[in-house]
Amino acid sequence: MERTGVWLVGAYGNVATTAIVGARAIAHDVANTTGMVTARPPCTRLDLPDLRDMVFGGHDVRDTSLLETARRLSAGGVPTADVVETVADDLAEIDENVRVGTAVNCGRAVTDLADETLDAPDVGDVVGQIRDDYRSFADEHDLDRVVVVNVASTEPGVADPDRYDTLDAFERAVEANDRDLPASSLYAYAALVEGHPYVNFTPSTGAALGGLRELAERENLPNVGRDAKTGETLLKSTLAPMFAARNLRVRSWEGHNILGNDDGLVLENDANKAGKLASKGDVLEGILPDIEHNRVRIDYAPPLGDWKTAWDDIRFDGFLDTRMKLQFTWEGSDSALAAPLVLDLVRLVAHADEYDEGGLQPQLASFFKAPLGVDDHDFAHQFDLLERYVDRHAGEGDDGRVRR
Amino acid sequence: MERTGVWLVGAYGNVATTAIVGARAIAHDVANTTGMVTARPPCTRLDLPDLRDMVFGGHDVRDTSLLETARRLSAGGVPTADVVETVADDLAEIDENVRVGTAVNCGRAVTDLADETLDAPDVGDVVGQIRDDYRSFADEHDLDRVVVVNVASTEPGVADPDRYDTLDAFERAVEANDRDLPASSLYAYAALVEGHPYVNFTPSTGAALGGLRELAERENLPNVGRDAKTGETLLKSTLAPMFAARNLRVRSWEGHNILGNDDGLVLENDANKAGKLASKGDVLEGILPDIEHNRVRIDYAPPLGDWKTAWDDIRFDGFLDTRMKLQFTWEGSDSALAAPLVLDLVRLVAHADEYDEGGLQPQLASFFKAPLGVDDHDFAHQFDLLERYVDRHAGEGDDGRVRR
Amino acid sequence: MERTGVWLVGAYGNVATTAIVGARAIAHDVANTTGMVTARPPCTRLDLPDLRDMVFGGHDVRDTSLLETARRLSAGGVPTADVVETVADDLAEIDENVRVGTAVNCGRAVTDLADETLDAPDVGDVVGQIRDDYRSFADEHDLDRVVVVNVASTEPGVADPDRYDTLDAFERAVEANDRDLPASSLYAYAALVEGHPYVNFTPSTGAALGGLRELAERENLPNVGRDAKTGETLLKSTLAPMFAARNLRVRSWEGHNILGNDDGLVLENDANKAGKLASKGDVLEGILPDIEHNRVRIDYAPPLGDWKTAWDDIRFDGFLDTRMKLQFTWEGSDSALAAPLVLDLVRLVAHADEYDEGGLQPQLASFFKAPLGVDDHDFAHQFDLLERYVDRHAGEGDDGRVRR
Amino acid sequence: MERTGVWLVGAYGNVATTAIVGARAIAHDVANTTGMVTARPPCTRLDLPDLRDMVFGGHDVRDTSLLETARRLSAGGVPTADVVETVADDLAEIDENVRVGTAVNCGRAVTDLADETLDAPDVGDVVGQIRDDYRSFADEHDLDRVVVVNVASTEPGVADPDRYDTLDAFERAVEANDRDLPASSLYAYAALVEGHPYVNFTPSTGAALGGLRELAERENLPNVGRDAKTGETLLKSTLAPMFAARNLRVRSWEGHNILGNDDGLVLENDANKAGKLASKGDVLEGILPDIEHNRVRIDYAPPLGDWKTAWDDIRFDGFLDTRMKLQFTWEGSDSALAAPLVLDLVRLVAHADEYDEGGLQPQLASFFKAPLGVDDHDFAHQFDLLERYVDRHAGEGDDGRVRR
Ligand SMILES: NC(=O)c1ccc[n+]([C@@H]2O[C@H](COP(=O)([O-])OP(=O)(O)OC[C@H]3O[C@@H](n4cnc5c(N)ncnc54)[C@H](O)[C@@H]3O)[C@@H](O)[C@H]2O)c1
Ligand SMILES: NC(=O)c1ccc[n+]([C@@H]2O[C@H](COP(=O)([O-])OP(=O)(O)OC[C@H]3O[C@@H](n4cnc5c(N)ncnc54)[C@H](O)[C@@H]3O)[C@@H](O)[C@H]2O)c1
Ligand SMILES: NC(=O)c1ccc[n+]([C@@H]2O[C@H](COP(=O)([O-])OP(=O)(O)OC[C@H]3O[C@@H](n4cnc5c(N)ncnc54)[C@H](O)[C@@H]3O)[C@@H](O)[C@H]2O)c1
Ligand SMILES: NC(=O)c1ccc[n+]([C@@H]2O[C@H](COP(=O)([O-])OP(=O)(O)OC[C@H]3O[C@@H](n4cnc5c(N)ncnc54)[C@H](O)[C@@H]3O)[C@@H](O)[C@H]2O)c1
Ligand code: NA
Ligand code: NA
Repeated sequence: MERTGVWLVGAYGNVATTAIVGARAIAHDVANTTGMVTARPPCTRLDLPDLRDMVFGGHDVRDTSLLETARRLSAGGVPTADVVETVADDLAEIDENVRVGTAVNCGRAVTDLADETLDAPDVGDVVGQIRDDYRSFADEHDLDRVVVVNVASTEPGVADPDRYDTLDAFERAVEANDRDLPASSLYAYAALVEGHPYVNFTPSTGAALGGLRELAERENLPNVGRDAKTGETLLKSTLAPMFAARNLRVRSWEGHNILGNDDGLVLENDANKAGKLASKGDVLEGILPDIEHNRVRIDYAPPLGDWKTAWDDIRFDGFLDTRMKLQFTWEGSDSALAAPLVLDLVRLVAHADEYDEGGLQPQLASFFKAPLGVDDHDFAHQFDLLERYVDRHAGEGDDGRVRR
Repeated sequence: MERTGVWLVGAYGNVATTAIVGARAIAHDVANTTGMVTARPPCTRLDLPDLRDMVFGGHDVRDTSLLETARRLSAGGVPTADVVETVADDLAEIDENVRVGTAVNCGRAVTDLADETLDAPDVGDVVGQIRDDYRSFADEHDLDRVVVVNVASTEPGVADPDRYDTLDAFERAVEANDRDLPASSLYAYAALVEGHPYVNFTPSTGAALGGLRELAERENLPNVGRDAKTGETLLKSTLAPMFAARNLRVRSWEGHNILGNDDGLVLENDANKAGKLASKGDVLEGILPDIEHNRVRIDYAPPLGDWKTAWDDIRFDGFLDTRMKLQFTWEGSDSALAAPLVLDLVRLVAHADEYDEGGLQPQLASFFKAPLGVDDHDFAHQFDLLERYVDRHAGEGDDGRVRR
Repeated sequence: MERTGVWLVGAYGNVATTAIVGARAIAHDVANTTGMVTARPPCTRLDLPDLRDMVFGGHDVRDTSLLETARRLSAGGVPTADVVETVADDLAEIDENVRVGTAVNCGRAVTDLADETLDAPDVGDVVGQIRDDYRSFADEHDLDRVVVVNVASTEPGVADPDRYDTLDAFERAVEANDRDLPASSLYAYAALVEGHPYVNFTPSTGAALGGLRELAERENLPNVGRDAKTGETLLKSTLAPMFAARNLRVRSWEGHNILGNDDGLVLENDANKAGKLASKGDVLEGILPDIEHNRVRIDYAPPLGDWKTAWDDIRFDGFLDTRMKLQFTWEGSDSALAAPLVLDLVRLVAHADEYDEGGLQPQLASFFKAPLGVDDHDFAHQFDLLERYVDRHAGEGDDGRVRR
Repeated sequence: MERTGVWLVGAYGNVATTAIVGARAIAHDVANTTGMVTARPPCTRLDLPDLRDMVFGGHDVRDTSLLETARRLSAGGVPTADVVETVADDLAEIDENVRVGTAVNCGRAVTDLADETLDAPDVGDVVGQIRDDYRSFADEHDLDRVVVVNVASTEPGVADPDRYDTLDAFERAVEANDRDLPASSLYAYAALVEGHPYVNFTPSTGAALGGLRELAERENLPNVGRDAKTGETLLKSTLAPMFAARNLRVRSWEGHNILGNDDGLVLENDANKAGKLASKGDVLEGILPDIEHNRVRIDYAPPLGDWKTAWDDIRFDGFLDTRMKLQFTWEGSDSALAAPLVLDLVRLVAHADEYDEGGLQPQLASFFKAPLGVDDHDFAHQFDLLERYVDRHAGEGDDGRVRR
């Protein structure tokens, strides 16, 4: 597993930039791996690609640079100015690998932000251009594998996604220049066709469409998503099972999120927000089927910058109908929570790909709000899946087993 | 499994009274089983004793009555006045089964509360009297089994407990009229000698001494404890594993508990508080070995009555040394949180006893802050042990298997 | 000041019912005056009407009874069942004084709740009927004074209120059967024309229209409002001045309210909510003109019943641009917070009326989110106005001064 | 008012260093005056000394430097590295004005931190040396006025302070080499004898002794203190009056503070903590005389560094004995909260001194937890005193009035 390409759709965004800065800072020994799941047991028992050997590239629709994003983030405290300066040259080099992406069906919230977009006469051409971008990246850097990760702004959901339920239907839509296909699915399709594993870090549609699942299955390529679980939902999937185990009847769970970065700005738009709320909302219903009131709010509060606060108010009944309550606030840097998981997912998906485990990846469920292929939202159960995967694979890299 | 005796040491206390009121209210169909672990899957797959068939008795050192305690609690909202009136006659009947207990080595905080204590010339006589009390209870009510549960006030810890590390050493101490033996261990010893399973709901020493473990092992009697996990520690054992799984470095966890009941009053006393803090503190160290600061406070705030609030402030570092934070408040009725677990433990211990599973009971680890015989404090892992126990036993009651 | 009539528009609502229950419970000596501003200094220096001498009546559009509302509230804990039973006969008697009201322009949220409404062919007839209702109440009970208080559900705001800026314009609108006039203003107009002081406890328009201010001024009748300050906004008007005094730069103040009563249900409706948010929002802008982000949310969470929780998150910069934070949660029974203020306002408005102080009442500013005639939202400054009023009037009742 | 000397006892501490860094950063135009009370109305109407014209010096007992303290603070985020570098030369220059102080009766917590202390054979010599230090500072820098500010670590309280109730008694004690006199009072005495106004920013005894009040009175020198109000107590003095005004019966107020700096370390020591708790505790009793439970905790949590969090839990009864609750968390940089007030106090005390207003300074009450000479702890009332002072003095500097 030598040179792993990491293609970030949304490369100039906060999450992508923080992931790149972090990987390079670790490579330069000015940062540690806190926050990376793969840096501790059980994953340390796997033979995973080294962060130092990752090569970054990606698409974006804004005309900026990694350094610019990094400096803006740094003004809010993370990463520090020192770290940014240490990796500044690396960032400039990686800028060379960033191509103009498509924003088709990403909604006004995104097109308002965009400076330039890939606008070909029809959908097939857009896909063609994306495939070319992937191919030149792999060729130019002589990469053994490229993992495509969607960390672009959240798109509005697709209406009636069932029409793309088979690969055949999907491909006919591309040919027929169907103007409803969202950007995220075009990026995903291009990735799978080119033989690259695909990770959807966002709530956007990506490769969740039936047709693309079929394609990944057929090509035996990892197809992973969606919407990384980094804050309020992580806590929900940790806490709700305790209420269930103890037979405490949760009656109301009200979650209120405030954040001040561009992700928050895009989510001010009702269409874009809808997808996010959907993936967040399901978690509780799954674990606590009798819940009466379950609402999530996301509010854009610019002075918070990249910091996000979730406040959750949970009312439950205990013995003898006693009304009780749990309230929490969770405060963190949005990007610092997300970025290490991007790197983890790349490493774990590369591993699965290496060991010919294509299709959905249940062992990665703990990373996502709406994990493809896993219905259980209990974080501990999901993490168990990862532990079992590791048990299954541990030691493989060492024992001379021939890999793909 | 017909008539199960439940002997509550500390019978007039809040937890004991709430458990009795609840069991009788459910028997009278004026309350439901919310908050009882055994009332939902997986435990519903076991053949457990019916709440309606439980017969209650116990020891106390205060001269009061169940109805008096129930009414005082009711003034704080739980149980409601209606429920108390419905079970009032039952409570009066159960009062007949309450005997004067011993408060030896329970500290000033307890003796100040006590009205009358069992004071025999020497320790052996005290044990003898307790055994007589157990025996008359079982005889009088024609009980198939008696489970002894310690829900008395928290005692100060025993100095140098290793001196009681063998049954032989313990029994020699009793004979030699050793004045250091704490009440809880005398109750426990009497129980085990009489052939009764023993549950220690409190942080007191009880049957945790090596000598008493040996006795329970030899007699193949369930020996379970200690310190039921109902609030802050329950949350710690739920949340800390998530930080570990995500490789988030918890640097400081400060827990502050305020409560206003007699348990809080006794815990104002530094000696009595020490034991409580010990069982609460270990949970985090086990799961987060690198934690830098871990402190728990318990403050007595009389206006809160039986309501307790825990406030926890958790500081952790994420990726790129980003400082983040989780804070929660947990607010509940202390007794309503604890009481259903008393009933659950009686049912599950009766089950283990019925199926000849004596000694420590790892499957009950999720109920305790300091579970005897289980080092893993991860709540989900502990609950897994219960699920596996149920898997092992499910269906047994139905299939004609001969029980003890 | 012997018999004061209290006419409550929205008589069967939570606030009205709690006020009536409270006044009668105090009269029966089963409750105390905690929560009443007039029960402590400085107001105890004034000669105010006795709660025992208040006679209650009102309008409503639902077909229910005070006892029914009281019992529903009691299920949530406040008032207790005991208190309700003590005043049950009084409530039944007061039911006799409740008349069917008008719901014109109250929006779907209200008409959906309504069972019966006063529907006369034109606006003038509605006003006529309301005046008749007031008059029969005063006559029947031989009242020295009637204070009309609006505690009905929040209406949507009036579009273009300037068209009613003079009394003349208002009266011409009534004559012309203008279908845009909201119920609250009709009740207010009828009150003032009949010579009754008017208190608007709600964010609805009421007597805030220029034309009705003119009428109150001309008739020298107290005209007071609007939107009583009982929770989050009370805290804002208390805390914000501290930030200002200390030159701490508040950048973001996000307020999130959850409540589960009918008031919350009506406020689910965007039109009805708009007025509420307007009166809540202004407070901060007044005290902290440089605030960057100021948002208030109100969410209906049925399991909370009459209990409301406000969570506020306040970010401010201190010295050397240090980012700091205050967060609070305020939890209370909505009606128990509001009801004593209804009684206070009746007493203080009766006093002003007695001493011929008509028109706007700046001394009552501390009671309101949007006090008519006072721009300063600093709670301490507003309370100062009350203290100065008391200083001005203290002793008057005793010293033989001839009153109106 | 040209050159004002600021003599900081505890010069190398966090508060002192942040004040100096801030003043110099403002002088270099790399920081603004947010957080300074004197930088906004009403104080901007006074003719106050310019920050740029302040000359700093002081005593300390640790062998370090301003730059070292500043850099340590900067690692925690405040001040930023940029700001520190901008003022680095100024700090080095000011280091020249720092002298070795005395730590007599400061307790083990302080002497453990100390590197070197002024240890003269007897108390009189210590006072003599301190006076020499003040005098050389004033001479060397040709200062018009020197304000001495105590920002040293909190000392344990003095036993039986009444024995120093007169100046005569105090001076006899010095002569008699009384070993009970605390360092803070020696610094204060030396200041007043030398004709310098004195500000006690800490809970230590300082010039609160009767004998030193007498001296300040006689010399007509401002004597101000004690214990600056920057966090939890500031909020108490803001919020408690609201509860009083609304006749809401506060039953329990539990305050829990966690902080991780040296101030926290010293306060781990019970003797040193006692004084702090005393000044914090009184505030509530004054405003809410009927409070039942009022406790304050201060816990040292090293990972928090200079950041402090206060969590307060307030239970109050409202109408109809309804139990309600307010909880808040206040989070800020300890030093950034305190430092601007040091500068404010110097400016305002210099002003009072300039206008011959000696003795206690009621107009500065809002700055302190235990303001000398003012019993009213209501923040708004205290701030009123400042506004009235300004009203009295506004314009004076401009109108040619002859000053002292
Ligand atoms: N931060 C977290 O904790 C977290 C957690 C889960 C999911 N996410 C998701 O990750 C995504 C990225 O978050 P972020 O904070 O980095 O947002 P961001 O706004 O900082 O970055 C998004 C980037 O995507 C680019 N972009 C938008 N549409 C594009 C398109 N069609 N093609 C190419 N580039 C496009 C934008 O120009 C921008 O540079 C969001 O969808 C967010 O919801 C974030
Ligand atoms: N409520 C919870 O959530 C919870 C959780 C874990 C553990 N516990 C533990 O349960 C115990 C009971 O709590 P509680 O709230 O009912 O307390 P409580 O003070 O209301 O009741 C304790 C009772 O024990 C009696 N007692 C004391 N010493 C005795 C002795 N030596 N022999 C017999 N009786 C004795 C007292 O008289 C009292 O009636 C405490 O040790 C507490 O720490 C409670
Ligand atoms: N509870 C508080 O703390 C608080 C504070 C400030 C303002 N308020 C306001 O007080 C009002 C009452 O609150 P509540 O909690 O009692 O609400 P509620 O819904 O319990 O009661 C409102 C009552 O008004 C009646 N009503 C509605 N429209 C009417 C009309 N046009 N004429 C006559 N009756 C009418 C309804 O039938 C209902 O009985 C609301 O406007 C609320 O916003 C309440
Ligand atoms: N930060 C705040 O918000 C705040 C508010 C009110 C009061 N205070 C008080 O201000 C004082 C300073 O706080 P800090 O955070 O700067 O503490 P710190 O520990 O950082 O600084 C105290 C300094 O005083 C020095 N010192 C101790 N005893 C001395 C003595 N006898 N003579 C000379 N120097 C001595 C120490 O060496 C240290 O450099 C404390 O008493 C604290 O309680 C701080
Ligand atoms: Na208890
Ligand atoms: Na400090």
